[in-house]
Amino acid sequence: MITMLSLEQLKEITRQSESKIVLLVIDGLGGLPRPETGKTELETAHIPNLAHLAGKGTCGLTDPVSPGITPGSAPGHLALFGYDPVKFEVGRGILEALGIDFDLKKGDVAVRGNFCTVDNRGLITDRRAGRISTEENAKLCKKLGKITLDGAELYVVPVKEHRFLLLFRGEGLSGDASDSDPQQVGVAPLSVTASSPKGKSTAKLANEFTTKARWVLAESHPANMVLLRGFSQHPNLPTMDEIFKLNPAAIAAYPMYRGLAKLVGMKVLDTGSTIEEEFDTLAKNYAEHDFFFVHVKKTDSTGEDGDFDAKVKALEELDRLLPGITDLNPDVLIVTGDHSTPAMLKGHSWHPVPILLYSKWCRPDRLREFGETACASGGLGRLPALEVMPLAMANALKLTKFGA
Amino acid sequence: MITMLSLEQLKEITRQSESKIVLLVIDGLGGLPRPETGKTELETAHIPNLAHLAGKGTCGLTDPVSPGITPGSAPGHLALFGYDPVKFEVGRGILEALGIDFDLKKGDVAVRGNFCTVDNRGLITDRRAGRISTEENAKLCKKLGKITLDGAELYVVPVKEHRFLLLFRGEGLSGDASDSDPQQVGVAPLSVTASSPKGKSTAKLANEFTTKARWVLAESHPANMVLLRGFSQHPNLPTMDEIFKLNPAAIAAYPMYRGLAKLVGMKVLDTGSTIEEEFDTLAKNYAEHDFFFVHVKKTDSTGEDGDFDAKVKALEELDRLLPGITDLNPDVLIVTGDHSTPAMLKGHSWHPVPILLYSKWCRPDRLREFGETACASGGLGRLPALEVMPLAMANALKLTKFGA
Repeated sequence: MITMLSLEQLKEITRQSESKIVLLVIDGLGGLPRPETGKTELETAHIPNLAHLAGKGTCGLTDPVSPGITPGSAPGHLALFGYDPVKFEVGRGILEALGIDFDLKKGDVAVRGNFCTVDNRGLITDRRAGRISTEENAKLCKKLGKITLDGAELYVVPVKEHRFLLLFRGEGLSGDASDSDPQQVGVAPLSVTASSPKGKSTAKLANEFTTKARWVLAESHPANMVLLRGFSQHPNLPTMDEIFKLNPAAIAAYPMYRGLAKLVGMKVLDTGSTIEEEFDTLAKNYAEHDFFFVHVKKTDSTGEDGDFDAKVKALEELDRLLPGITDLNPDVLIVTGDHSTPAMLKGHSWHPVPILLYSKWCRPDRLREFGETACASGGLGRLPALEVMPLAMANALKLTKFGA
Repeated sequence: MITMLSLEQLKEITRQSESKIVLLVIDGLGGLPRPETGKTELETAHIPNLAHLAGKGTCGLTDPVSPGITPGSAPGHLALFGYDPVKFEVGRGILEALGIDFDLKKGDVAVRGNFCTVDNRGLITDRRAGRISTEENAKLCKKLGKITLDGAELYVVPVKEHRFLLLFRGEGLSGDASDSDPQQVGVAPLSVTASSPKGKSTAKLANEFTTKARWVLAESHPANMVLLRGFSQHPNLPTMDEIFKLNPAAIAAYPMYRGLAKLVGMKVLDTGSTIEEEFDTLAKNYAEHDFFFVHVKKTDSTGEDGDFDAKVKALEELDRLLPGITDLNPDVLIVTGDHSTPAMLKGHSWHPVPILLYSKWCRPDRLREFGETACASGGLGRLPALEVMPLAMANALKLTKFGA
């Protein structure tokens, strides 16, 4: 029921200052207890540095979107960056582009493409074309890339197995166009239609592309056709500089997270991919920025694999390296995740995510440990992830008073 | 993020009854721990009466606006009175008028004025005219008050040092007019412009006033010019009577809080200025009203002074006098603050505010103390201050069922 300040209202009370904020996002941080011990991954891990930090700071649990909602990576991160994930949706096509470091321009329409198999009547027999190899995919994308259309440049970029990115660049395009993927076999691919008048030219281009692709792929087996979905445009978010008056930098080894950071105007720093290398990148660039988003992936991938012990180990490795951040003495250090990825569930989940906030001006609670159960009685309480940025800004003394 | 009932929806389920609610607002109640002890002002104070009440009632922490946001006095109080502080903004001019007990009428446009110094080219050399004395200010306001304008009555009322209230009263006025204060020296005062068509006549009046003021003040040094900002009108809030069917009264020693209470239709009671006198006023008028807002200022002013010990003493004094309220046996007693004012920060802050609710119908928690850390695990949890009024009304059995 809280009416939160709009980004426009927030902008009125943010101020630039020397203080520095580090937002450490441990992807998929939250977990579920292993039945034998009743302890989650985080509660099982030996993490003395985080426990010490919890003793000095204040903890809580965040809901990335709202209770019960399992977020994808985009909503999970946008919320932490201060952008309402329900209001600002990042389409599947755009996410696909971000995931391969494609250099998006405003106005581009990105689409997720699948190679598929159709029979001689044109009916789909396999929506993934037998998951062709990534090499085969690359060859086919090269062929499709030669297709020319009136009114837009075309990019066809291989992703993995049967997946590719289709991108239209031109004037007057829009994401308001329907999927051609019927999400079932035994029927023909659908015609793309405009879902608003703005989408007409894009739908026309998409259908023209599909028709030509059918001819180009006629002799390819099993990948003899394409399915399109997730037509979407760059969400045109106001930058963190505009709203928060920050000069933000992102340190992330995986393209999708770099891409999400770019969407809100962060400078993406070159980095090695281990946690140690990421923290080194932070130290090296510490003087140049006042906000750092540091992304750790391993906790999520081990969770997705259902490997409880490997996730525990990843957390312990992170904890061992934590002085690489704390020794820099950031004015505000936030340690949290973009969502939970319990090894027990082998995937993202809706469970709230532990958060630890340390600053000189936080009001410490009595917790001396960092874990799901402890965080439930922490001083930050339970809060939407969207409120993390205002809290970070406040603790960095970068917010002035609201209202007279 | 939960959708709350609108005031219109709330109005549908409120009912008048004999039960009585006392809302005790301890201004700037929340604090931060003193490093030597790890205890806040409230946790340091010896407050047996509040601890006893906490044992019978239920506690929690409120966010006056939302996490991270530091509220001014107006948003802090409006939220406690049940009015969304993000939706209903009180302009600086109006607040200035409230702060001197000026009897505002609907339609008035109030403006915050500063005396300033300009050089012979008309460029500002001091935005505060060397902070002239309040006596000098009063003399100059008297002169300015003789200015006459076509189309509006004019009031020029001294506040303190270089500050004054300028008020236009007439038909068709609006707060949609820009500041003449450029917020910097070395430039001339700006022309006031209308920010919407409604503001045209007000902007014209303001510029006419400024031109005439320049002549009137020509021989005054250093206060030879005026700067205007915060053009605003009475926010026209629905009254607490309309929404809550209450007959509310305010007991506050400081004009600004009396003014905020008037904005929502409370009757302002004459009172002495000590806590004891305020509680006496409550007892004397207890039969006449069913809702009382009692405002204690000393905790905020000592916090603003950075005087930890004085804030502790103020809390102890309040606690000692608390039987002055509890002996009246109000059906609902709420003890909270409009925001935190940690002595460590010497000003308002964003930290959540302890709240204690006692009624026969509250669901008691296990707390036996009233302090920031304890409240974090109280039965009320963490809630927006805007939800305090619905809770008070419910516990007074003044709300009927919502929905069939």
